[in-house]
Amino acid sequence: MRVPDELIRFIAREKKFFIATHINPEGDALGSSLALALALESMGKEAIVYDRDPVPESYRFLPGHERFTALLPSLTTSALPLILLDCNEPGRAGIESVPIPFSAVIDHHETEKEFGQIRWIEPRAAATGVMVYALLKKLGVRFTRDMATNLYTAIAIDTGTFRYSNVTSDVLRDAAELVDLGADPAAVAEGLYETWTGGRFMLLIDVLNTMEVTDGLVITVATKEMFMRTGTSAADTENFANLPRMIKDTRVSAFFRETEDGWKVSLRSKGKVNVAQVAGGFSGGGHRNAAGYLVRGDLEKAKESLIKAVKSYGG
Amino acid sequence: MRVPDELIRFIAREKKFFIATHINPEGDALGSSLALALALESMGKEAIVYDRDPVPESYRFLPGHERFTALLPSLTTSALPLILLDCNEPGRAGIESVPIPFSAVIDHHETEKEFGQIRWIEPRAAATGVMVYALLKKLGVRFTRDMATNLYTAIAIDTGTFRYSNVTSDVLRDAAELVDLGADPAAVAEGLYETWTGGRFMLLIDVLNTMEVTDGLVITVATKEMFMRTGTSAADTENFANLPRMIKDTRVSAFFRETEDGWKVSLRSKGKVNVAQVAGGFSGGGHRNAAGYLVRGDLEKAKESLIKAVKSYGG
Repeated sequence: MRVPDELIRFIAREKKFFIATHINPEGDALGSSLALALALESMGKEAIVYDRDPVPESYRFLPGHERFTALLPSLTTSALPLILLDCNEPGRAGIESVPIPFSAVIDHHETEKEFGQIRWIEPRAAATGVMVYALLKKLGVRFTRDMATNLYTAIAIDTGTFRYSNVTSDVLRDAAELVDLGADPAAVAEGLYETWTGGRFMLLIDVLNTMEVTDGLVITVATKEMFMRTGTSAADTENFANLPRMIKDTRVSAFFRETEDGWKVSLRSKGKVNVAQVAGGFSGGGHRNAAGYLVRGDLEKAKESLIKAVKSYGG
Repeated sequence: MRVPDELIRFIAREKKFFIATHINPEGDALGSSLALALALESMGKEAIVYDRDPVPESYRFLPGHERFTALLPSLTTSALPLILLDCNEPGRAGIESVPIPFSAVIDHHETEKEFGQIRWIEPRAAATGVMVYALLKKLGVRFTRDMATNLYTAIAIDTGTFRYSNVTSDVLRDAAELVDLGADPAAVAEGLYETWTGGRFMLLIDVLNTMEVTDGLVITVATKEMFMRTGTSAADTENFANLPRMIKDTRVSAFFRETEDGWKVSLRSKGKVNVAQVAGGFSGGGHRNAAGYLVRGDLEKAKESLIKAVKSYGG
């Protein structure tokens, strides 16, 4: 991974930056943005850190999280150079309407559009945090514990604390360095995994109680009534679709979430089943092991169609 | 951490070893033992790998797991030198009756007894796997993917895949080196966390359905009837006591498991509450954040006593 020289020159040249990241931000978006902002300030520069959406409760342990702003008006007048993080087109950040004189993109997702004068895209990087860490090293930043904690969190969440297939020895070495710089692995893990609301946990129990298993297809459901009763929302179901993967014989996990218009179905697979293909049959899409689609109408009928689709896929 | 010279000399001197580890073995015990056995063989030596109990289903992804034997008779006649791993007295391994001419202990637990001619005990090491890795490096072993996978698993399980407070930058660096030597972090994580039986998952749902919350004390229960219905056993409840820690407001999690004689209560705390003290009030014991006790008689009464004890502790 090579930090582009033009990115270094751009940062050296400018004095004030507009850092933005994607809507519904998670740990990599938040941690990368905050680490970069803190680093720029340590270099005597200024940074505004923007997200359209508020920092989720579960990420309010990140040092500096209160710096995130959702205010655009002042920006539109000052027209600052943009650094777009963890996404690569302004629509994903909800800033299409902001006049931007110059943009640099730092992201590990596949390209959506050709946006930005400087485009640093590394789809093989485990997290945008890995890229920002490399950038800050190249910039010669004097690291603080707060920067290290933000970057460690970014890397930890995008690798499932070092459980996913994007974990390389370099990722583990970066994590080791960030611990040397002050990040506390146990504190980050507690922040990430032990801050559920009671309502979210109750919702999880409700959802698990709906579990039905048919030939390795595990179906679970969250209804509007459950959200209401537990005082939760769609965001609280993050990762629910993955839980049945714990079961050895699970081939596909399907999580049905009730929406205004019907059901949002999240599919996860282990091993051979390509759920992007299954989702495609319902006009949805995604990746091999994680995909989804929308369906209207009756829940039981929707389940049956899925059971059929997975069966016919399997044989 | 310094590998004792006498341990190196002992291994150089002997030709055949009896490697044993504790009963009810988990990943650190198993992975450390297998890595050491494979390494000794790569040096042209022989090793018998012993555990009184079988390798749990969930660890049968470890390369070489089938080498574990529970047979002692032949050993008692040959009287081999012992290497005792991940525990430090023969009773913990169920080998009190075996005549042992010479013993070396490699362990990261606090000492129980003064056992062994060579005693290498490092209570600050995150895992016995970390110590065995250091030993193999010192021995100049040519590492294989199988050795690396066993050691990576040992370290991963004892650090909760790098989530516990025993994670240091050195642990992460060891993990990085083991990945370079062939360990696959995602495959190990799948082996560790995605191999539950359907029955175990059903048991989890049953247990979660018993959840009661009183002022930050979360109580869950597993009854004999649940074990029977789901075809599970006590071993399947490993880690259940920890789950309610996910909830932000949990101060203490108490998991009641029905036994022949009453209830085994496992306590876990977050933050300030010292559950060893709480357990002490019921003639139990343990550590600050993980303790337990046994109680006879009525479940509801036992719950009430605990609620009172935690309340009086808190204020």
